[in-house]
Amino acid sequence: MTDRVVLAYSGGLDTTVAIPYLKKMTGGEVIAVSIDLGQGGEDMESVRQRALGAGAVESIVVDAKDEFAEEYCLPTIKANGLYMKQYPLVSAISRPLIVKHLVKAAQEHGGTHVAHGCTGKGNDQVRFEVGFMNTDPDLKIIAPARDFAWTRDKAIAFAEENDVPIEQSASSPFSIDQNVWGRAVETGFLEDLWNPPTKDLYAYTEDPALGNAPDELVISFESGVPVAIDGRKVSVLEAIEELNRRAGAQGVGRLDMVEDRLVGIKSREVYEAPGAVALITAHEALEDVTVERELARYKRLIDARWSEEVYDGLWYAPLKRSLDAFIESTQENVTGDIRMVLQAGRCVVNGRRSEQSLYDFNLATYDTGDTFDQTLSKGFVELHGLSSKIANRRDREARRS
Amino acid sequence: MTDRVVLAYSGGLDTTVAIPYLKKMTGGEVIAVSIDLGQGGEDMESVRQRALGAGAVESIVVDAKDEFAEEYCLPTIKANGLYMKQYPLVSAISRPLIVKHLVKAAQEHGGTHVAHGCTGKGNDQVRFEVGFMNTDPDLKIIAPARDFAWTRDKAIAFAEENDVPIEQSASSPFSIDQNVWGRAVETGFLEDLWNPPTKDLYAYTEDPALGNAPDELVISFESGVPVAIDGRKVSVLEAIEELNRRAGAQGVGRLDMVEDRLVGIKSREVYEAPGAVALITAHEALEDVTVERELARYKRLIDARWSEEVYDGLWYAPLKRSLDAFIESTQENVTGDIRMVLQAGRCVVNGRRSEQSLYDFNLATYDTGDTFDQTLSKGFVELHGLSSKIANRRDREARRS
Amino acid sequence: MTDRVVLAYSGGLDTTVAIPYLKKMTGGEVIAVSIDLGQGGEDMESVRQRALGAGAVESIVVDAKDEFAEEYCLPTIKANGLYMKQYPLVSAISRPLIVKHLVKAAQEHGGTHVAHGCTGKGNDQVRFEVGFMNTDPDLKIIAPARDFAWTRDKAIAFAEENDVPIEQSASSPFSIDQNVWGRAVETGFLEDLWNPPTKDLYAYTEDPALGNAPDELVISFESGVPVAIDGRKVSVLEAIEELNRRAGAQGVGRLDMVEDRLVGIKSREVYEAPGAVALITAHEALEDVTVERELARYKRLIDARWSEEVYDGLWYAPLKRSLDAFIESTQENVTGDIRMVLQAGRCVVNGRRSEQSLYDFNLATYDTGDTFDQTLSKGFVELHGLSSKIANRRDREARRS
Amino acid sequence: MTDRVVLAYSGGLDTTVAIPYLKKMTGGEVIAVSIDLGQGGEDMESVRQRALGAGAVESIVVDAKDEFAEEYCLPTIKANGLYMKQYPLVSAISRPLIVKHLVKAAQEHGGTHVAHGCTGKGNDQVRFEVGFMNTDPDLKIIAPARDFAWTRDKAIAFAEENDVPIEQSASSPFSIDQNVWGRAVETGFLEDLWNPPTKDLYAYTEDPALGNAPDELVISFESGVPVAIDGRKVSVLEAIEELNRRAGAQGVGRLDMVEDRLVGIKSREVYEAPGAVALITAHEALEDVTVERELARYKRLIDARWSEEVYDGLWYAPLKRSLDAFIESTQENVTGDIRMVLQAGRCVVNGRRSEQSLYDFNLATYDTGDTFDQTLSKGFVELHGLSSKIANRRDREARRS
Repeated sequence: MTDRVVLAYSGGLDTTVAIPYLKKMTGGEVIAVSIDLGQGGEDMESVRQRALGAGAVESIVVDAKDEFAEEYCLPTIKANGLYMKQYPLVSAISRPLIVKHLVKAAQEHGGTHVAHGCTGKGNDQVRFEVGFMNTDPDLKIIAPARDFAWTRDKAIAFAEENDVPIEQSASSPFSIDQNVWGRAVETGFLEDLWNPPTKDLYAYTEDPALGNAPDELVISFESGVPVAIDGRKVSVLEAIEELNRRAGAQGVGRLDMVEDRLVGIKSREVYEAPGAVALITAHEALEDVTVERELARYKRLIDARWSEEVYDGLWYAPLKRSLDAFIESTQENVTGDIRMVLQAGRCVVNGRRSEQSLYDFNLATYDTGDTFDQTLSKGFVELHGLSSKIANRRDREARRS
Repeated sequence: MTDRVVLAYSGGLDTTVAIPYLKKMTGGEVIAVSIDLGQGGEDMESVRQRALGAGAVESIVVDAKDEFAEEYCLPTIKANGLYMKQYPLVSAISRPLIVKHLVKAAQEHGGTHVAHGCTGKGNDQVRFEVGFMNTDPDLKIIAPARDFAWTRDKAIAFAEENDVPIEQSASSPFSIDQNVWGRAVETGFLEDLWNPPTKDLYAYTEDPALGNAPDELVISFESGVPVAIDGRKVSVLEAIEELNRRAGAQGVGRLDMVEDRLVGIKSREVYEAPGAVALITAHEALEDVTVERELARYKRLIDARWSEEVYDGLWYAPLKRSLDAFIESTQENVTGDIRMVLQAGRCVVNGRRSEQSLYDFNLATYDTGDTFDQTLSKGFVELHGLSSKIANRRDREARRS
Repeated sequence: MTDRVVLAYSGGLDTTVAIPYLKKMTGGEVIAVSIDLGQGGEDMESVRQRALGAGAVESIVVDAKDEFAEEYCLPTIKANGLYMKQYPLVSAISRPLIVKHLVKAAQEHGGTHVAHGCTGKGNDQVRFEVGFMNTDPDLKIIAPARDFAWTRDKAIAFAEENDVPIEQSASSPFSIDQNVWGRAVETGFLEDLWNPPTKDLYAYTEDPALGNAPDELVISFESGVPVAIDGRKVSVLEAIEELNRRAGAQGVGRLDMVEDRLVGIKSREVYEAPGAVALITAHEALEDVTVERELARYKRLIDARWSEEVYDGLWYAPLKRSLDAFIESTQENVTGDIRMVLQAGRCVVNGRRSEQSLYDFNLATYDTGDTFDQTLSKGFVELHGLSSKIANRRDREARRS
Repeated sequence: MTDRVVLAYSGGLDTTVAIPYLKKMTGGEVIAVSIDLGQGGEDMESVRQRALGAGAVESIVVDAKDEFAEEYCLPTIKANGLYMKQYPLVSAISRPLIVKHLVKAAQEHGGTHVAHGCTGKGNDQVRFEVGFMNTDPDLKIIAPARDFAWTRDKAIAFAEENDVPIEQSASSPFSIDQNVWGRAVETGFLEDLWNPPTKDLYAYTEDPALGNAPDELVISFESGVPVAIDGRKVSVLEAIEELNRRAGAQGVGRLDMVEDRLVGIKSREVYEAPGAVALITAHEALEDVTVERELARYKRLIDARWSEEVYDGLWYAPLKRSLDAFIESTQENVTGDIRMVLQAGRCVVNGRRSEQSLYDFNLATYDTGDTFDQTLSKGFVELHGLSSKIANRRDREARRS
């Protein structure tokens, strides 16, 4: 039987030339699969045709925008998913979805192999390959960039030798991954950690220093899900898109960080994720009002572990599913409105209201209506501090003797 | 023997009138202790005299500004101490220092009681009293506001009846606690969570929307300690003061949050902490460069627990000391420079350099000089994902049968 | 309206005399509620009649044995619930069930108050009262032992003065709480931590040193639930009862520990819980075979937190529910057989088999059939150790300079 | 320059034949290093001579028994180091010490390579190689069993072809690793998880069912260090040796478990560690008396993480050092005596006494002398339960609407 390689196809030069290259290396056929995750850019039909033109036997385009928003971005909102307290997992949550559709295409079209374009020193190879191992371990994996040291230069040379039609545009200095949840940029210039990012790195956000008038909005959640903006009902996808536009216009969501990669090295990364940052900020503020203290404290640990697990390519791992179960159980009453001001790179919550609020005016107020019985505090204080009081007494005595 | 009550004395109306009031209630003498934590405002000598004028037998002023910076703010920097990911523990870290000096005064001046002005529904009563229990449990504690329902109105009435000279200024609608590390504001208006903060709440920060030109600076750390700004050597206190000025001028460090109090209720709080926010932001960015991944991941849990422990009034508890030991052991190589831009309410790190950096250009670069052996990745990926691969295979088989 | 006090009634002297005492103190009526949790001892109908004889207007007996086993013991098995790694939460899990039935009785019979016999320095008062606050905060709580310093001596004197018929047996030196999940004993003699427990403390277990022949058995689980012993189907209650008998006969499940109470003190406790210890041991061994590594590591943290939460009286708290959601999500495949030998106080697992096992003979064996590709390990080792390798290199260089 | 391979040399057939084999494969010289960790068996001088006879240019014996006890076993006692709650890390803590001495030998004798005998599917290869990477990354690593598929059969064939003198004993069916801290046994028979261990597996422990008379002893600790047994001063090594003898005679310390290996698979392991189990049991019991509640709760998490870190071969990693700092800070007052009965496979603590005890008889007793102020409890209970009370009220209202 002929080998059939299912290729994660972006439409770019590298994966286009990879089509004839993979045919040659494997002696098999190539099925190109392109996933629309809201990354924008080119029309998906042109992408599809280009793969066929390069020799793919099948070229499949999947509109996964809503699926991505509902099943990958939304859990990230509920988990306040920020790796190292900052990075909203832009690429990390897209890989498992791409894996899912490549596996589906392989099962429908007799695929024997899957191929991706990642190098051998990044996180995405791990996310792809652990994804494949976890969902269809019979598929063999090819990573040309890693396994055959396939590079941009080799691709161009191969295209010339083999008459593959390519538009050889001026090579961009940036390596970019983007989808509706955000945009990641790497470039040689940033590899010196002392260099500040330059303005041309950004595409999803305006310069925060432009001095635009503030944009105030109200985001409404039901059980952790953003359901309306300024009173208009929205899908999760629409919420992200609208906030990408409005928060992006104010320069919200730019990140410049040194990141701990899964393969053991540190790397400099620049991200833009205006919608993600605005939504997670609002969601956290609503949790502060609607989630009980001890649960909230523990959920912060769970959220951090969830973010590491997803960053580490373990979306399909058992632990991830159990963390999801915990998180889901906390969201039932995360319902209400968050008012937020977007301006000059900041998104600042300045109002919350919720039928499910745990804030109790009568317990909190120092004014008329106070129902808090202050006489209870004395006993609480004494017993709250008793075990450390005894320990400190012992310590003083031990030091004396 | 006559009772001697050591009173935490602020110089304000309430604690001034508390002096004759405590004398009357206890039949004893009152020793006023005022601690300068960089809260600014009135001259400390005037404060001292006022206590004597109100009938204190002793009135002691302690300049604890450097001590506060070195022994309370600095550990907070090292722990990236942010309760609920936001609040830099402004009041929480001041209480144990005040406790320490009240206890010292009691031991030197024959104090039998200590008194504080906190109510019975806040965190500070717990911090004070657990502090006293842990450091000198023989001292009896009096909290007039809680134990005798002592209020502003009662204080004024008592002053009039007893000829205590007070300047009865127009009552401020704000309840304020401030020191060099930040400023906390509560007011009835904010008790409606939907109300945005008003401009008159703020004193340490300018309006972020003023449109000031950006302020770029370089903060240098040695083993986690801020030691220079823009190349000029600074003490920790000077670092905080300079950043309060410069970050405050850009509107950095305003917080508006709903907070989980130790006594079990939620409350709305507004804070300003420009220096604290700038220093913690810079410190975290330097840790990202100099602390190894697994240690950094675990330290984030430790940092969060440290913040909860300190918030909960357990500064002197055994767990706090062991968390400190962990944190201290991570700081040896947190040495280097952070470049930061302050503007419009944001403090953004855009450059890091460190002799102790763990960032390795040759491992990270995709350009010439790359020394990362990509062939290692295949084995890593396979074994990294093996246990979840086996579990998913089992799960698929279990579902089938 | 007349007050009606719903009393947690054990049938013993103290709660019997409490009936007229509560009538006198409140001027109201008393409803006695007795819950059968498998504690054995007296016939429940006699208990019921005694309360009526002492003046209760209603006396209700609830057979909650199966409910206790299914809804309180079973979650403890799934959570491997051992406080301080040892104590299977015997009393801790019974309190929320008693609370539930007292609240139910109050709602059905117009109860306005609930009363329990706990003192003010133990855990159980907290468990009862937090339980009431969480399930029906309108009920007023009376704790005679704490609130009126009600003691055994006072009870006897009160009975004599008020002609309450009591059989004044020779006072037992033991304070005992027991149910089908185990038995807790406190006694003055044990308050000296150097004293060993004496043989007369025990009722559920034989002396482990008797030299009985070993008892080998097979416990079968389905999704974390014990469903058969030696191939015979059992309910959870039957499993506990059979193992209480068989493990008890071998002296399994005796505990002698110093425990950290919720109120801040340490106390010496002796427990017997043969069935609980045997079931949790078997359940953990089956998890070792059927739960994936990273999930298992995290579940151990969750289990420990669950145990603390339940010990601390927070059965009805939000965090407990979310921990349950996590735990429940891990149990689906905890299915299989555990063979165990009971002898001389030990319960030792020596065989496991499961259709859902994650143990893969072909990966594990060093014999013929080995399918583990050892060449993968080199890459794994290198990247597993890379981040610490870089950190150690940095540390050596920092020390040198 | 000639390559010099520093070989971890056990004296057994495999590593003896590895000497000429490594010479042949590398064209270099072999330096044999044998470490005495108290594994017993053969005289170390005979081992040393055998290596020279097989062609080593240097043969070095290191008596590291005390070093192993003080610097590797003792931290394990302080950390209550039990992987998966059971395994006292017998092999895991020996590898970093062997690494240290191999590196030292390489530095002293011009070694360019290090070699170990581990296979490519176990934990020990990782522990060795990450150890080398972390302490001397310039050394090249050779793992013949993994890299050249070197097996027992190949070793015998090679010996015959090359006239290497070997005593070809009847091949043992067991793969054994042992040192003073314990003994690990693997064998094909145990690879069926349903098979019980057989009696011939054990060497450090007698059959627990022998019916020996109980052995009662008192272990004294100072700051977490075992310093005396039954009043006689002992070194850590002597404590382990004496308890190996006495606890071993009672069958204490046998383990039969399914273990999660670092490389992602589960494996069946049998261990014996009588001294380790007795010492950790005693140490935990003393911590229960001398460590404050909240610190003790957190230390259990730290202990578990420490055990995973050490199991995973990360002894020299930064996180391990910071966990050590935490643990060390908890041990100052872990001082006192533990009385323990050894019998029939159990080691049961039945008495504790300590000058540093946090147990307070007067607070704990229910008899005369009780100083616990029970009236404090009401306030404590109310505020301890307040946040969940508010949350449950909200939940009930949300369900109603």
